[in-house]
Amino acid sequence: MSLLTVGTVAFDDIETPFGRAERAIGGAASYITLAASYFIKDIRLVSVIGGDFPKEFLSDLESRGVNQEGLQIKAEERSFFWAGRYHNDMNSRDTLDTQLNVLADFDPVLPAQYKKTDFVLLGNLTPSVQMRVIEQLEVRPKLVALDTMNFWMNTAWDSLLEVLKKVDMLIINDEEARQLSGVYSLARAAEQIHQMGPRYVVIKKGEHGAFLFEGENVFFAPALPLLEVFDPTGAGDTFAGGFMGYLAATGEVDFENLKRAVIYGSAMASFCVERFSVERLRSLSQQEIQDRVDRFVRLVHFRV
Amino acid sequence: MSLLTVGTVAFDDIETPFGRAERAIGGAASYITLAASYFIKDIRLVSVIGGDFPKEFLSDLESRGVNQEGLQIKAEERSFFWAGRYHNDMNSRDTLDTQLNVLADFDPVLPAQYKKTDFVLLGNLTPSVQMRVIEQLEVRPKLVALDTMNFWMNTAWDSLLEVLKKVDMLIINDEEARQLSGVYSLARAAEQIHQMGPRYVVIKKGEHGAFLFEGENVFFAPALPLLEVFDPTGAGDTFAGGFMGYLAATGEVDFENLKRAVIYGSAMASFCVERFSVERLRSLSQQEIQDRVDRFVRLVHFRV
Repeated sequence: MSLLTVGTVAFDDIETPFGRAERAIGGAASYITLAASYFIKDIRLVSVIGGDFPKEFLSDLESRGVNQEGLQIKAEERSFFWAGRYHNDMNSRDTLDTQLNVLADFDPVLPAQYKKTDFVLLGNLTPSVQMRVIEQLEVRPKLVALDTMNFWMNTAWDSLLEVLKKVDMLIINDEEARQLSGVYSLARAAEQIHQMGPRYVVIKKGEHGAFLFEGENVFFAPALPLLEVFDPTGAGDTFAGGFMGYLAATGEVDFENLKRAVIYGSAMASFCVERFSVERLRSLSQQEIQDRVDRFVRLVHFRV
Repeated sequence: MSLLTVGTVAFDDIETPFGRAERAIGGAASYITLAASYFIKDIRLVSVIGGDFPKEFLSDLESRGVNQEGLQIKAEERSFFWAGRYHNDMNSRDTLDTQLNVLADFDPVLPAQYKKTDFVLLGNLTPSVQMRVIEQLEVRPKLVALDTMNFWMNTAWDSLLEVLKKVDMLIINDEEARQLSGVYSLARAAEQIHQMGPRYVVIKKGEHGAFLFEGENVFFAPALPLLEVFDPTGAGDTFAGGFMGYLAATGEVDFENLKRAVIYGSAMASFCVERFSVERLRSLSQQEIQDRVDRFVRLVHFRV
């Protein structure tokens, strides 16, 4: 099976109570592809970077099976840049700076082989860019999932609704689900979002876990209770990457397998926050991942 | 097995986005005893009310097996009263009024038969009152659990630490756990609280579920994703009442049984919030409770 993802590959400046990182590797697609690479090797990356982006990271991705024919490199320009500072509770952050740079006029172009892909994850980007990717697909994938954020609800509502009609799954956080649906109860929000198109709705609650909804079917996975959260940046994208990577590796889109995918995504996210940037995601072993999944089993299973 | 609880039996004025209730029956021990009564019949109540409290509710409790020899009735005085208003998100509330009335000089006196009780739940009250109950016990119970709140951390720190040394379990919410321990991570907070005395720590996160810690053992139960939360008042006490009622009914204090108790407590809390005050807790069937526990199984179980 194959996984295509479109999203940012970028630099982040990050401040947390534990320290700071400058020009660290960031961007949704960096986290997504790294997380997914622990499950499948056929990953297709659609993104854009400037000439300033480190070749070393691209080589690492390549060695993990991440095809980069769809990665545009604009040698004379600079990569997307974001700077943020986390508050003491790690649950809220201020954006200090955003420089679109290469992203300003990003027009994703799918190489021929990308047009037949089994699983597609549309990372958080302008809805029109996400739609451009969908339009270029020649064969209906087994599953198309989409991430978005409040910013696009405020600035591109109509095109967001259009792209929502085309996807099978929406992966967003609780605040975004409430804004999109206009209701507070997440169970009711999921009902509303189903009406907008997506058959599956994943609602991430950060340190409070994640819900998976498919109509009457509901599944919940907590976040692991960690002694310390070092840097939450990319945890949501890592969840999505692990989730889609697991699905693509196993190939089955049924509720039981989606539940397992939520657990694997949650396990990957729990690693992400242990170090700055993508650092922890570059050095995992399969045994570490399995051990963490086993912790989820112990955390939530009971017998009545 | 038997369960003793000490806590308030009171009147509440409640405002939520769905409406208001005036002089509704409230108080920790009202919720605790009602919830526990679905599991065991030998419940001993230690509390104080004024002459204004409705006999009808006391008769209802009695018919459920709640012994009231330890309930002081001060005919010339008025019952404890609390008034609060919930914000739109139901996760925060303002206290509009608190009238201690009979609670101002409450000195709990245990009838002879109460002094040998298998399970004890010390509801949220002045730590010195909680200690007075412990001091009167003649036989070490199988488990003593204690609830408390920020107010006592701010006003009675030393006596709170004293009573914590005497109990087996602390049941508090996330904000209280953070204040008590001085750390943000709930896993680390539980470590700190273990050092203060309690072998078991239950941390309630409201709509985000509840953790059970016993050293390295951790269990988590989500709250059920409800379409609407009508009135959150008493949900935490209902959780504690269902939890202790289940434990007392089954008698085993081991981690596997404590996990089940967390699930039953969570199920009872999910009913509590469906109506104002104690209303929903007065009309449950065993089948409804079992159906809800089954929903928890479906919500969190997965196979890897």
